[in-house]
Amino acid sequence: MPNWLLPENIADVLPSEARKIEELRRALLDNFRLYGYELVMPPMLEYVESLLTGTGQDMELRMFKLVDQLSGRTMGIRADMTTQVARIDAHLLNRSSITRLCYTGSVMHTRPSGLHATREPLQIGAEIYGHAGLEADAEVQELALASLALAGISHVRLDLCHVGVLRAIIANDEKTKHCEAALFGLLEAKDIPGLKEISSNFDDLTRNALLALPNLYGDGKTIAHARQVLPQLPGITKALDDLDSLIKLAGTTDVTVDLADLRGYHYHSGAMFAAYVPGLPNAVARGGRYDHVGEAFGRARPATGFSMDLRELARLMPSAGRTRAIRAPWGKEAALCSKLEELRRSGEVVIQSLPGHENDQDEFDCDRALELENGNWILRKLG
Amino acid sequence: MPNWLLPENIADVLPSEARKIEELRRALLDNFRLYGYELVMPPMLEYVESLLTGTGQDMELRMFKLVDQLSGRTMGIRADMTTQVARIDAHLLNRSSITRLCYTGSVMHTRPSGLHATREPLQIGAEIYGHAGLEADAEVQELALASLALAGISHVRLDLCHVGVLRAIIANDEKTKHCEAALFGLLEAKDIPGLKEISSNFDDLTRNALLALPNLYGDGKTIAHARQVLPQLPGITKALDDLDSLIKLAGTTDVTVDLADLRGYHYHSGAMFAAYVPGLPNAVARGGRYDHVGEAFGRARPATGFSMDLRELARLMPSAGRTRAIRAPWGKEAALCSKLEELRRSGEVVIQSLPGHENDQDEFDCDRALELENGNWILRKLG
Repeated sequence: MPNWLLPENIADVLPSEARKIEELRRALLDNFRLYGYELVMPPMLEYVESLLTGTGQDMELRMFKLVDQLSGRTMGIRADMTTQVARIDAHLLNRSSITRLCYTGSVMHTRPSGLHATREPLQIGAEIYGHAGLEADAEVQELALASLALAGISHVRLDLCHVGVLRAIIANDEKTKHCEAALFGLLEAKDIPGLKEISSNFDDLTRNALLALPNLYGDGKTIAHARQVLPQLPGITKALDDLDSLIKLAGTTDVTVDLADLRGYHYHSGAMFAAYVPGLPNAVARGGRYDHVGEAFGRARPATGFSMDLRELARLMPSAGRTRAIRAPWGKEAALCSKLEELRRSGEVVIQSLPGHENDQDEFDCDRALELENGNWILRKLG
Repeated sequence: MPNWLLPENIADVLPSEARKIEELRRALLDNFRLYGYELVMPPMLEYVESLLTGTGQDMELRMFKLVDQLSGRTMGIRADMTTQVARIDAHLLNRSSITRLCYTGSVMHTRPSGLHATREPLQIGAEIYGHAGLEADAEVQELALASLALAGISHVRLDLCHVGVLRAIIANDEKTKHCEAALFGLLEAKDIPGLKEISSNFDDLTRNALLALPNLYGDGKTIAHARQVLPQLPGITKALDDLDSLIKLAGTTDVTVDLADLRGYHYHSGAMFAAYVPGLPNAVARGGRYDHVGEAFGRARPATGFSMDLRELARLMPSAGRTRAIRAPWGKEAALCSKLEELRRSGEVVIQSLPGHENDQDEFDCDRALELENGNWILRKLG
């Protein structure tokens, strides 16, 4: 094997793509800041116990693990940054007030989530801690849409769901308790034959509710329909009321509801959302409420947030053209150096030709050259 | 063990520090771009063979390793990004012209380099490929100093050294061949008794040269002194000529020379440099020439560059004060929303109070409030 081959589903980001990612990264972080979100930088590696706090088995399988030579304990490479940020809120900042945090960085997955998916998404996200009300959920949804708009994506469909529906159904029927994970998988796959089989000995109420869920998707009217076909359990009523309110708070946004879209079910505790764009099967942003994670770190704090993959978003953006630049000769004379400094300070890219490579800057569009004329350094247009 | 404890020498970066790091990161990357350096983003994980190409055993011990579930092969978490960038130049870009690349990202070390050193430096650096002349070395040195200036560090001492001196001494005496690594360690530690012992059976010329090296440090005059006390081997003459030229190219910079400072000896192929600031024992930037790494990836390319740790640099910078912000009430009415958007677009941080948490934004300096007066949203100064 040649030593320049990379592992599967792992790739370098080359200059034109890197520039798009960097510009988008800055635009999103700047926008988070304008909403009052503070940046934090959790580490790449932590003890697995911390990284897996409040997450499901899914995350455990997705996480690379290694031994810490200093402690002999097992560390994981973060596969998601949300838990880390919840830990920072719960323990390091330890504020009683509302805390808005944002973050960005690489996360690693042992296996790709699809054939062409990267194993190193560049996660970016924002979270609100300390407010249990739907206003916080509405704010992070607004911020997710504003982030997509900054990436040039305006036709977005916001798909809402709520873990409370399935949780209420399961809590209401002893017989379902041992198969929560299986039910979740079958609903996620909208596998009606599978649901029929697993629910054959459940109460009728439970069975009918489970079989109804895969069909409860569509526009806002889905909520009214769900109120008719689902049992009137308090947990279900609360979940449907939440979704109703969130649809109203989303204003003119294109909102759909899918009561069987339960990705992140183990981790979340309330309303969840996913943002879809035309032509892409997978969501470009996902978020939701996860109030129990702070509690797992020893300090109960309501929490809601969202995250996206900067690499994937950047891929949806048009490539920037070549940057204009000025070609300058090599040299260290004071007059030349001060001219170079002046041009760069004004924002011009100025590339000094190294001796023997005078016409080499093909990655930049060198449309001007710095030349010495009658003892003065002047800019000349290049053809 | 509580699940919020981090491994030793690994830490979260909290908001005030994260902001400094982020601002410095942008300032340095923007400046690299003004010099014509293009950003690349190599992956966190690669096969160990790639990551260790051209590096010494030192790097092998510092690198975390794990098994790739897709290939069964051993991958490493990058402990340094320079080799990755050399691989990108050699194989992905595959240009014949001069290529200037820059990069930034976390690297991980199995053990800290000192008691309080982080195991997760945030590396940032810049490299020139394709030019063997000293002009490229001078450019990266200038860029390193310009980067430190952007971090507010102006009193910098540039310390130069050159692997050619020790290489020439070793190449000239068969008996030294098996103890290159030991010699390098002893010189690095300036351990004269150790050098006397190891060199007891070497030729006199070799022995005297080795024992002279630890004392060959100081200002530019050191070069002239070295020419007198070191043997006149072509490799030594070339190295001293290089250093002489680099001192001249550095202009008014405070330059010293230390012929026994050989950190990175295995990796480098020519002149090396380290930048020191008053009060800190360790260099804040290091760089040098490493022409053989491209060759190890199957394509010989001259290469020189430098790198720094953004976390360490940011620690040297004063903390930014609290950001001014505007407090706004919660709400979704069109007039309020459009006012919020207008203010944020003008660069103001506007924080919507969530119901029940009206006075909560203590991390920002909320010196104005958005209030409704006679049907208009106006800004009122807060005491």
